[in-house]
Amino acid sequence: MESSTKRKSDETEAPAPAKRQQTNTLSREYSIFSVKAVDDVTKYIADFIAEHCQRENVEIEAKLGILIEKRTNVRVNMGALTETIINPDDNRHYRFESNMPLEQHRHFNKILNDMVNKTQVREYRGERIKYKHTIETDRFYEVPNTRKKIRVTTDQATGKIVPNGIIEKIRIADLNIHAPNQALDFRISINLELPRTKPNTETSFERNKDRISYQHGGIAFDLTQVKGSADKDPDLRHELELEFADSSILANEKSKHDHFLAVML
Amino acid sequence: MESSTKRKSDETEAPAPAKRQQTNTLSREYSIFSVKAVDDVTKYIADFIAEHCQRENVEIEAKLGILIEKRTNVRVNMGALTETIINPDDNRHYRFESNMPLEQHRHFNKILNDMVNKTQVREYRGERIKYKHTIETDRFYEVPNTRKKIRVTTDQATGKIVPNGIIEKIRIADLNIHAPNQALDFRISINLELPRTKPNTETSFERNKDRISYQHGGIAFDLTQVKGSADKDPDLRHELELEFADSSILANEKSKHDHFLAVML
Repeated sequence: MESSTKRKSDETEAPAPAKRQQTNTLSREYSIFSVKAVDDVTKYIADFIAEHCQRENVEIEAKLGILIEKRTNVRVNMGALTETIINPDDNRHYRFESNMPLEQHRHFNKILNDMVNKTQVREYRGERIKYKHTIETDRFYEVPNTRKKIRVTTDQATGKIVPNGIIEKIRIADLNIHAPNQALDFRISINLELPRTKPNTETSFERNKDRISYQHGGIAFDLTQVKGSADKDPDLRHELELEFADSSILANEKSKHDHFLAVML
Repeated sequence: MESSTKRKSDETEAPAPAKRQQTNTLSREYSIFSVKAVDDVTKYIADFIAEHCQRENVEIEAKLGILIEKRTNVRVNMGALTETIINPDDNRHYRFESNMPLEQHRHFNKILNDMVNKTQVREYRGERIKYKHTIETDRFYEVPNTRKKIRVTTDQATGKIVPNGIIEKIRIADLNIHAPNQALDFRISINLELPRTKPNTETSFERNKDRISYQHGGIAFDLTQVKGSADKDPDLRHELELEFADSSILANEKSKHDHFLAVML
């Protein structure tokens, strides 16, 4: 083997000052290469989001729920012991239930409310959590001779269409992540939400959304009770979604990163 | 749903100061709970090490290599896209080859030597890398009427036994981690290295180790060429091991952490 080029091969010890090596605490440098290790799963998700975040009208959200293997109809079990990204080629073998027991939903509701109160005290120096409670109805309209659907969202209190309330949602990509150590798995979804004009056809179905949205760090934590029409979808679903409030911030960060790489390489 | 307790349920917007929410950069707070997310794989490995690091004479090391599925005799392929811990219950289905191609070994040798040189310049302000080149022979002795083996290590230049050079190595636990995005998987091994006296039986086998050890941040990066005796194990192996130079530092950190939890909970 090659010895370090600055010394002879029969020299056995580098002439580094011995004293500074002997402190009995762990070094605070990231690694021998001075580089911070990036977690593999985090990097995969970051790359997945980076691929899409610069599109116009893009919506990037994560939903908590359970990944069900279609073949067995129970929660996925791959023998993995830690968070595992499901190969997107296998996505058709699974379905994702964006739902949780009422108790779990209450738990999130309570701890998030506690956080709101904690960040509202006068002396609080961190970022305060913005909080919004909405009760809305989504009505879906089919576009004749297509498979497209238009969603129109109204405020139940006023009956008026909410801002940016008429959209066509187009699915771009899903990433399913199984979290065997946690009660819930999660899915990251990339959709386009294209602004549309109000359709003049009949409503095909509707659903009611009672939502509390907590905003912090550029992310909206949406805790929602969803109820379909009494005849078609009467069950109450309890959802928790995390949505990037403004994907242009991500796109901006990605541009900076791309520029950094272009300059460095 | 419960609204945040400090406001009425029909109030739709929290009275947080709007201005500080509108800066167009990502928040630097760790999360809505002010807690830094811990990577699942990192936590699993940390817990695994924590379980053993307080034992006496414990050796904690990671080896780079390839996880081979015994059934197929090729590198494991679980369909995982990111770093995945193999369930220890399944360890018997795999063997770990602590070996790499000569070219890869040369690559590590070169970049580590470059790092040594970089940290040796007078103005360097970070932690310097300690460097040690050893050429040693391990001789193994069986203990009559047992399955135990004693290892005696001598310096080839002097023929003398090296400090702490007579040990009995006892395997405690292995954790295999498959890294599908990397050329090499890795295994974390916990062993006891019990000091022994020199056996007076015959040597059963021996091997030669040409090793460069780079020390930084409490970790020794050992790049080793291993060669068995000409008749029994003539192939040259190229190993890279990372070893905690002093597991008492880890044990100390764990004590502090346990104390912290005991006080907090």
